[in-house]
Parts: sequence; structure tokens; C-alpha cells
Amino acid sequence: MVNPLIRPNDNPDITKERHAGTFDVRKMACFLYGGEDKLQRRAEILEFVKSKPELHDPIPVEFMTREERIDNAARKIVAMTDNLEQIDASDFFGEGMYYQSLIMGRDLHPLSLHFVMFIPTIQGQTDDEQLDEWLSLAISRGIIGTYAQTELGHGTNLKNLETTATYDPKTEEFIINSPTITSAKWWPGALGKSSNYAIVVAQLYTKGVCHGPHPFIVQLRDLETHKPMKGIRVGDIGPKFGFNSSDNGFLLFDNYRIPRQGMLMRYSKVERDGTYIAPKHSKLGYGTMVFVRSIMIKDQATQLAAAACIAIRYSAIRRQGEIEQGAGEVQILDYQTQQFRLMPQLARAFAFMFAAYEIRDMYMKVTEQLTHGNVDLLPEIHALSSGLKSVVSWEAAQGIEQCRLACGGHGYSLASAFPEIYAYSVGGCTYEGENIVMLLQVARFLMKAAKEVRSGNAKLAAICGYLAKPDLAHSKFAAWQTYSDANIVQDFEHVARRQIFRAYDVLMRHQRETSTEEAWNRASIELCKASRMHVRLYLVRTFLEKVATAADASLRSPLTDLTRLYAFDLITASQGEFLKGDFMSDSQADGIRDGIYRCLERLRPNAVSLVDSWDFDDAELHSVLGRRDGNVYPALLEWAQKSQLNKTEVLPTFEKYLGPMMKEGRSKL
Amino acid sequence: MVNPLIRPNDNPDITKERHAGTFDVRKMACFLYGGEDKLQRRAEILEFVKSKPELHDPIPVEFMTREERIDNAARKIVAMTDNLEQIDASDFFGEGMYYQSLIMGRDLHPLSLHFVMFIPTIQGQTDDEQLDEWLSLAISRGIIGTYAQTELGHGTNLKNLETTATYDPKTEEFIINSPTITSAKWWPGALGKSSNYAIVVAQLYTKGVCHGPHPFIVQLRDLETHKPMKGIRVGDIGPKFGFNSSDNGFLLFDNYRIPRQGMLMRYSKVERDGTYIAPKHSKLGYGTMVFVRSIMIKDQATQLAAAACIAIRYSAIRRQGEIEQGAGEVQILDYQTQQFRLMPQLARAFAFMFAAYEIRDMYMKVTEQLTHGNVDLLPEIHALSSGLKSVVSWEAAQGIEQCRLACGGHGYSLASAFPEIYAYSVGGCTYEGENIVMLLQVARFLMKAAKEVRSGNAKLAAICGYLAKPDLAHSKFAAWQTYSDANIVQDFEHVARRQIFRAYDVLMRHQRETSTEEAWNRASIELCKASRMHVRLYLVRTFLEKVATAADASLRSPLTDLTRLYAFDLITASQGEFLKGDFMSDSQADGIRDGIYRCLERLRPNAVSLVDSWDFDDAELHSVLGRRDGNVYPALLEWAQKSQLNKTEVLPTFEKYLGPMMKEGRSKL
Repeated sequence: MVNPLIRPNDNPDITKERHAGTFDVRKMACFLYGGEDKLQRRAEILEFVKSKPELHDPIPVEFMTREERIDNAARKIVAMTDNLEQIDASDFFGEGMYYQSLIMGRDLHPLSLHFVMFIPTIQGQTDDEQLDEWLSLAISRGIIGTYAQTELGHGTNLKNLETTATYDPKTEEFIINSPTITSAKWWPGALGKSSNYAIVVAQLYTKGVCHGPHPFIVQLRDLETHKPMKGIRVGDIGPKFGFNSSDNGFLLFDNYRIPRQGMLMRYSKVERDGTYIAPKHSKLGYGTMVFVRSIMIKDQATQLAAAACIAIRYSAIRRQGEIEQGAGEVQILDYQTQQFRLMPQLARAFAFMFAAYEIRDMYMKVTEQLTHGNVDLLPEIHALSSGLKSVVSWEAAQGIEQCRLACGGHGYSLASAFPEIYAYSVGGCTYEGENIVMLLQVARFLMKAAKEVRSGNAKLAAICGYLAKPDLAHSKFAAWQTYSDANIVQDFEHVARRQIFRAYDVLMRHQRETSTEEAWNRASIELCKASRMHVRLYLVRTFLEKVATAADASLRSPLTDLTRLYAFDLITASQGEFLKGDFMSDSQADGIRDGIYRCLERLRPNAVSLVDSWDFDDAELHSVLGRRDGNVYPALLEWAQKSQLNKTEVLPTFEKYLGPMMKEGRSKL
Repeated sequence: MVNPLIRPNDNPDITKERHAGTFDVRKMACFLYGGEDKLQRRAEILEFVKSKPELHDPIPVEFMTREERIDNAARKIVAMTDNLEQIDASDFFGEGMYYQSLIMGRDLHPLSLHFVMFIPTIQGQTDDEQLDEWLSLAISRGIIGTYAQTELGHGTNLKNLETTATYDPKTEEFIINSPTITSAKWWPGALGKSSNYAIVVAQLYTKGVCHGPHPFIVQLRDLETHKPMKGIRVGDIGPKFGFNSSDNGFLLFDNYRIPRQGMLMRYSKVERDGTYIAPKHSKLGYGTMVFVRSIMIKDQATQLAAAACIAIRYSAIRRQGEIEQGAGEVQILDYQTQQFRLMPQLARAFAFMFAAYEIRDMYMKVTEQLTHGNVDLLPEIHALSSGLKSVVSWEAAQGIEQCRLACGGHGYSLASAFPEIYAYSVGGCTYEGENIVMLLQVARFLMKAAKEVRSGNAKLAAICGYLAKPDLAHSKFAAWQTYSDANIVQDFEHVARRQIFRAYDVLMRHQRETSTEEAWNRASIELCKASRMHVRLYLVRTFLEKVATAADASLRSPLTDLTRLYAFDLITASQGEFLKGDFMSDSQADGIRDGIYRCLERLRPNAVSLVDSWDFDDAELHSVLGRRDGNVYPALLEWAQKSQLNKTEVLPTFEKYLGPMMKEGRSKL
């Protein structure tokens, strides 16, 4: 079939795969990215980035020391933001993310929190005067800001932050202080070395009373010398699993004074005499959080797809072992076990991507409604985005590791890009809300809904509508070919509903024995499980709905195979839940398992075409194993030449340690 | 209770935990390591290592560049082997591993393959004359050797290696050649820069006939200059996920000549005129393989225990969030979800450690039998060790990641040691036999046994005896307290047996439709599953049997809780298998799930004492989060000061990029 990636001199194994695909790869890419115009813009942005040498790495980043990588990221981010007019910066979800990923790869940079947290906080939390003072300064890159909230001893629990901001009416200043080691700000991106400003969240004290955490804008470093201001101790928190191009930092205040106007005063205020004026609205900022999560989900989907792309292309050109004696070594993609490792990851990537679009659309709808003062959808979309963030980040990370492991020894080399992708992606399980905490937030929402249903007084959000549906006695599954979208959704609804009410019952049982809070704790494993099932139902349904919109049958067929594989794999992974209460029979469960094998067979010829459809450029994948042309082995050898250790034939270790040791050993004989 | 780790000035939260333990930690350590004398030797070795500054790192290795780390490892390994008389080197499983881990941490070194592969190959494969020539030279460290088998394009399939060794009778030499890029030797440890000799596995050609892969001893580098010999291209393969202190290498031969005596001739020979003499025995070396795997399993158990130790100690001193309003922040170890993340990992570590001992004992028994020419147990122990290697390495890696994630943001920092532990441990899924390949090897053994049972002609190995037992209709589980060891084993036997015969039936069904080989491929997911269940049964049984030998009731009680947690967690994770065929009822399955919660409650007070029992020294854990004294936060701040980026207050990036950018931004306003 039509595949624009077929070129002369490619590895014949990968060309063969591309010819074997049953659909037009360009059309699939259109379906995935939302239209021909979107693909066109991707191509233009790619071409621009390729044309600008200052946006490239002088050597692959994996050969750099941490210092070199920091330097390289700072250099590139300045060049990148010098050229922002190349993209529609208002479309960060689409063009912005793509542009950034082409230039920065999987590296963070000195402005990462400046744009995502510092500027939005200024926009959202300042009064008019403050807005005038700070916004254009920040947007023009006249200062670099970050967002300092988390402390060494305090993560998600904002209430217990220890940093204090005590108002001194005599000088009309706030005194920012870090009373303990645990109050050190810890982790904010670009805080260590790059930023000269920060939004600092601190406990506000005035007239001897604590009014809880409030945001302050604080200068950290001198504008001219970039040295830390007196009373400020700031530095890098050291090397991490990933993100080592970023100077995540710590920050300690020694009674550091800032003017009264340093407090962001849109909602709360402290007057000159120290009088505190409480905010009118209590909770805000849900919208931004949802937006950040839609970005994260798209990012996770993209990383998972990249991993699947690398592993599937490599599995098409790697030949190892024989199935039939004497028939020659086979492409490892022909092994059922290999397909079972890789294809479900690809299915997940599609499912997650479509969910990201859906959340982005919901975010825009909610934002629209908010301008009219309508907050109805907020709790629903907040719960959903929390749950998706948790499930997607964990399953993406697991899927990436499966892709890596499926590539054997070469997957362990940084040449594969997998270690980098994994470390980058798995961070998403922790930042922007730890995954278990997120699942428990979703559970609060679900328990409220369950309670309403039980009390016969349900005013359910659309997303929870299935909780009020009557129970189904048995799954309608008869054969994998006839298992309809509606049947699939019904079955996932059934198990999600059952687990949600099970968790509810467990919670109620504990509440009769102990306090509400301790009951919640004792039910929390069941609650997390309920949340996961709720989110999986959402992912399955969204995936099916999206695929149903594919007009072209040649696209719909492999996409449908992916939806089945996705659903069958989920069912088999929690088979017990589907068997319980005789909802599925043993033979139905066996039929589902068999369906996995059929889907793998059907998807095998389209495996390479499906990953090609993600429109990854080699520079974006940054993987020797995942090269478009499939010519992996010469490239691996070439890549290895760049190793730091290959700069000289003989390392100093020979003269210093190993040579003398061997000489002595030989002299003894 | 008695806990020798309680000291003044420790974090009070961790001291409180140690007082709350219900058993004597020293006694538990004795039980775990096999007696007071073993603990005594550990203490002596630790003291020796601590007393020798040349065995220490000048700065923590995570702050070193790759070059510095390579240098440090070479320096230490020379010092380490200079002092080998400090340990009983014949007991590598016990003293050797401990001594090495205290000095090298999780770093490999220039002699890692010299001792484990090069010397054993010389011992096992040379004729008498060759043995005289090479063994004492290698043992005295007069040369450094490695083992070069795997090639760039060829991993486990030895038969298809491409490197050739062609005999030239005119000069009585072998010509070693790498005919293609894919024939490059790739991955061997210490090959890139450190070794000057290697055992090279190459296809032997003489008189125009290929006799398959044979081992040759080949000089790679000049003894005096350490430069590669003419005709040899050798270097480092570049940075990896982990093991970056090791110069894993590539190696290419350009018609490189070695004397005829370079072929290791204990079994096969090539005579002066080129006549090939075939070996008398066909397969050897199973024994060494089993020994290496017993080492790996112990190593994986230790790494998992270290991760659990770090996470559990940290969870005891980390306070975050409130369960009861106003009651203050709680130790995060009090959250049920946190316990559920961590305690099963600890249970696994115990199970894996006991399995490692068992395999070591079996290895010694088999070695003893082999000296009498008895090879009966070989297939059984080989299959078992392959399966254990696969299941243990994967579950250990997953468990380590759970421990890391349970520590939130701090788990992502290299200060935690988790990223290092994970990258180190997960490598075990790939090296020494890729895990899926290993499981399929076990399946060969199991299918043979299944066939025998079906044909009524079973002569089963003890380890497969359960395959011939009659099927049980229903699990005897009534309540978690009364679920006996025998009942548990029976139930695991049931599901393993059922899956093994299911896989057998699937295999037979496919064999009726296609070739035997393709049938094997089409059944391979089922076959892997069968192998996993067989191995898990073994792990559960071994764990129960070992714990039953604990004479002291105060030890047996928490150990029994761990066995239950281990078993219940496994059952719940594959609940579907236990529900099928109505083997367990829904309420039994719920009872098992409930048993998990009860075990978590019961184990909670002993959590810290149980990890203390592993007798890890702080230097061995190498984790700021896992410190014995629990004083984590000041230590984190101190650790961060060492960051490469904190050597100067202002990085060069300010003057080069960020400063000018900001100045320009401000000038525009």
C-alpha cells in the first residue's frame, strides 16, 4: 500500500513490511492528528527546525556530561524562543509541543516552568497593578521565573508547608523565612541555577495570625551578576533518574525581605497596616490543572508510541532463531511472544492519544462555560483528568519498558533511546500529583456518585451514568468477531460498577467500625481499584467511539483490531473481575484470550505501517534502533565510535592501575 | 524488642518502629543468612573494608562522569583483588559476593568477566598443556581476559554466529575474521578498553568444512603498550541504562592470525594438518550456568530487599497528610496503599532469597553427583534455574520500581539509589538468557512431562510430581487464618497443573494444523504462562518449607505473615486462574483479598524490624533515604551540595545565553 516512508537502499525487511500494509499511511496519520492541514503544519515546523543549525545538538546528548547537557539546553531554549513566530504559540497542545519536542528532545530547559507555571500564575493571581509590572517583563524574557511550592519535607499537602511570610507593617515588607531544613523548597524546575525570580508559596502571617499558604513573587538572584540575593540560599538538587538537563533546585530563606507588593493580590490582600482581606472565591485554577494534564496525557501517548515504533521497526529487521529448521532466521516480529509484548503497547498509545484529544476538547468546553459562570462540569473533568493522568502515566511507563525489554541487549543501550524515554515518562507517575493520591481523588468523586445512586437520589454526571444502570447477569460475548462495541462497553461498565459499589460497601462497613477518615484509609486499596476500572472504561469507550468515526474502511479495519486487542488484553489482565458472579463463563474468558491471538495475527502485517502512521521523524525518535530506513547495525557501530571512552585507544586506567597489576602478576610466574 | 540498630540521636520515628518490633532482629538475621557464624563473617568483612581507604569512593559515584567512574572502578578492583586473602574466595555465593558488593557497590569493573567467565572457561575447555600455559597467568592477574560470544546481529542463537576461524595448515594458524558488521562481537564486559585477552567463540573451518562454533583464546592488545594488535578493532559500545562503570565492548577481526594452540582443545581438536577431531561429550557447562543463576537470584533478592529497606525506612520517617483531622501528619507507612506497595516486595525478597539458597544447595548436590557420572538431575535443575532467573529478575525489577514510586519525588533523585538499583537489577531480565527465551526452555521441559503424564508413562522429576496428582474440585480455603501450608501448595499446584495441560492441549491442537515448530510458536504465550505458574508454585513451596523450619515462634509469626501475604498477593493477581472451573468461589476469592489486608495490618509493626534483619550497612545501601538513623532531610541537603552544578554560584550558561537574553528582553520594555 501507499507508504511515503519507502525509499531506495532501505533495509529490505522493512520495505517488505511497508509494502505489506493494508492501508494508506498518510491517511492514517491524518486520522490520528486530525486532518491534512495538521500534517502539513507538522511538516513545515519540521523543515524549519531542520534548517536552523542553532536548534540542533552538536553531538548526541547521551554522550554529554551533565554540565554539557545543561549548557546545550540553555543554548537551544534561547534559540527556540527567539523563533516562536514560526508556530501558533496559542496552540501549545498541537504546534507548541511538537516544535519543542523537535528541538529539546526529552530534555527540559531553563524556561520550562517560566512558561508553564510562572506566567500563568502571574496572569491568574496578580491584581491589575502587579499584572502591569510583571507580565510583559516575563513574556519578553526579561526575567526567568519558576514556581516554588513543594518543600523537602512536604509534597502534596499544601496546608502543612513550613515556609513563612510574616508581614512587618513598620517597613511594609514581608519577611520570608525557612524555619527548618524540611521547609527548604525542593524540586522546582530551573530553580537551582537558571531562574532569578520565583513564585514562592508560603504561610502568610500578619498581626500574629496565620492565614494559610499564599503566593509571593520573589527575586532570587541579582539581575546583573546572577548571584543569589543576600538571605537566599539556592542550588541544584543533584542528579536524577531523568531530566538531567534541568537544574531542579532547592531554596532556603534567611529572613529575606520583600515589599508588600510581592504578595500576589488578586484574591487575598494584606493592607499597609497588616489587615488581611480574605479571598471572595475559594477554589480556582482547576482549569489550568486540567490543561496541564491533557498535555501530559498526549505526551505520554506520544512517548509510548515512540517506544512502540522503535521496538516494532527493530523487530522487523532483527532476525534471530529459526521457527522452521533450515528456513533461515526469522524476523523476531514473527514470534507470537514478541507480538504480545509489542502490539498491546501500540493499541494503548492510540487509546491514550484519543483520550488526550477528548480531554483537550472537554477543557475547551469547560473554559467556555466558565466564562459564563457555569462550573457544573468542573468536578467531573477534574476527576477524570486526575484519573487519566494516573492510569495513563503508569501504563505508558510499563509499556515502554516492555518495548525496551523486547529489544534484548540493544534495548539496554542508550543508542536505543529507551532508557531515556522510560526515565522521562515514568516521572509522570509522580509529578503533577502522585498517582495513588490522584486515584483516591477520583474515588472521592465516585463514592459521592455511588452514595447518590444508593440513596435513589442520583443526579449523576454523564461520565458516571452507568452507575445507575441495572446490573447485567451475563456478558453477551459469543465470539471475538461478533463482540460489538456496545457489548464491550457494557461489560466494562459492569465490572467498573461492581467494583465501585464493592468499594463503597467496604467503606461503609469500616465506617460502622471506626472514624470516617480511618475507614477511608482501610478501604483505600479497593477505592484505587474502583478508580482504575472507571478510568479504563472511559479509555475503552473513547477509543471505540473515535474509531467508529473513521470513514475509510481500510483504516477502520486495523483500528478495530487495535480496539479489540486493547479490550481483550484488559479483560484478560483482570480476568477474575469478569469471571466473578458468573458474569463471564470460563469458555467466554477462553474465547477472549483466543481473541488476543487472532488480533495479533491480523495486526502482524500492519505493524510497521501502524507505527509509521505516527509521523515520527528520525530526529524526534532519536533512536538508532528505530531508524526509518532499518539500517540499524552500521548505525550502531557508528554511534558507538562516539563513546567518551573511544577518544583514546588506551585509557589512563591502564597506566595507573591495570598495567602495573598485570606486570606484577606476570613477574611472579 | 532487641534491635542492635537502635542508637541515640536517631530519628525518633524510626526508633519507635524498632522498639515496636515483636522479634529479635539479630535472630532473624541469623535465620536469613544461615547462622551466627555467617553474620560474624559479614561483620569482619565489613570492618575490613571500612578500615581500608583505598577500597572507598572519594566522592559518591553518582556525581562522577563516566570517565571518572571507569577510573574509580579500575582503581578499586585492583585494591579489592590485592586483598582477596580477607575472604574465603571459594565461597563466592556467600563471602565473595558480599565483599565485592561492599567495595564495588552496583558498579561493574575491568575484571568482572575475567573471574566469572574467562578463568572458568580456561579451567573447563583447555587441554593439559593449555591449562599450564594460561591458568596461572590468568589467576595471577598477569593478563585480563573476557568472554566474547554475542555478536551485534546475533544473541542467543549460537549456531548463527558469523565470526570465522579458518585453519591454515601452511602456517599452522587460525585466521580469525569478522566478515560482516553484524559479526562484530558486541556487549562483552570489560572488552572495550580493559581486557588484553578474550575467549572468542567463532565458526571453525578446516579443510573447507565448517564444524560450528568453538572457543579460541585470542590476544587483543599488546602487553606493554595496551594498544590493539594489528588486525583488531576494539572499543567501548557507549553509554547504557546502567553498568556505566563497565567498558562493554565491540570487537572486529581483519583476518587476524593466531597459533593453532589458540583453539581450546580439551574436547574438540584440530591437528597440524587440519584434521578435525570431534568432541566425545556433546553438551557441557550446565553446571556453571546453574551456579551463575544461583548467584543472580541471590543478587536480585538482595537488590529487592535493599529497595524495600530504603522505602520502608523512609516511609517510617516521612510524614505527610492527615488521616484524622487535627491529629497531625502521619507516617506514610500508615497508609494502606503504601503498605500494599511495599510489603509484598519485602515478602518477595524473602521468598527469592530462600529460593537462591535452595538452588545453590541443588547445584552442589548435582556437582557432587556429576563427579560420579550421574546426570539425572541436570535437566530438572537447569529448567528450574532458567525459570527462576526469569521470574525473579522480572518481579524484582517491578518490585524495585514500586518501592521507588512509593517514595514520591525523592525516589526519582539519585540520592535515593533507586534509579541505580533499578537499572542494575532490570538488566538481569536480559543478560544470561533473555527472560522469554528462558521461559520457553522451561516449557520444553514441562511439555515433555505433560506428554508423559498423558501417555500414562510418567517418570517425573520430583519437581513435576504434582502433574500426575489427581485434580482437586475446589480449593480448601475457608478463612485466611486456617489456610494451611499444604492447602496453599495444593491450590498453586492446581492452577499450575491446569495451565500446563491447557498449554499442552493448545500445542497439540496447533500441531494437528501446522508444523511442530509453528505450532510451538502459536502456543508460546500459553507456554510462557505455564512456565511462570510452575515457577511461582516452586517459590511459594520453598518459602513455606523454609519458614516452617524457624524454631523460634517470635520469628515464625512474622515470617508466616510474609508467606501469606506473598501467596495471597499472587492469587489475587491471577484471580481468574483460581476462579476458573469454579475452583475458588467468589467468596473464597474475596476472603483471600481480605487476607491481604489482614496481613498488612499484622506486618505493619514489624516492617522496619524486618528490613533491619537484612543486615545492610549504610555504605552498602548507598541511599540517603534508606539511612539507618532515619535522619534523611539534613542528609539530602548535604548530598545536594555535592552536585556538579553547585561548584560555582553562577553557571557559564548565564553569561553565554540567559543573561544576554534577559538583558535584551528588558531593554525592549
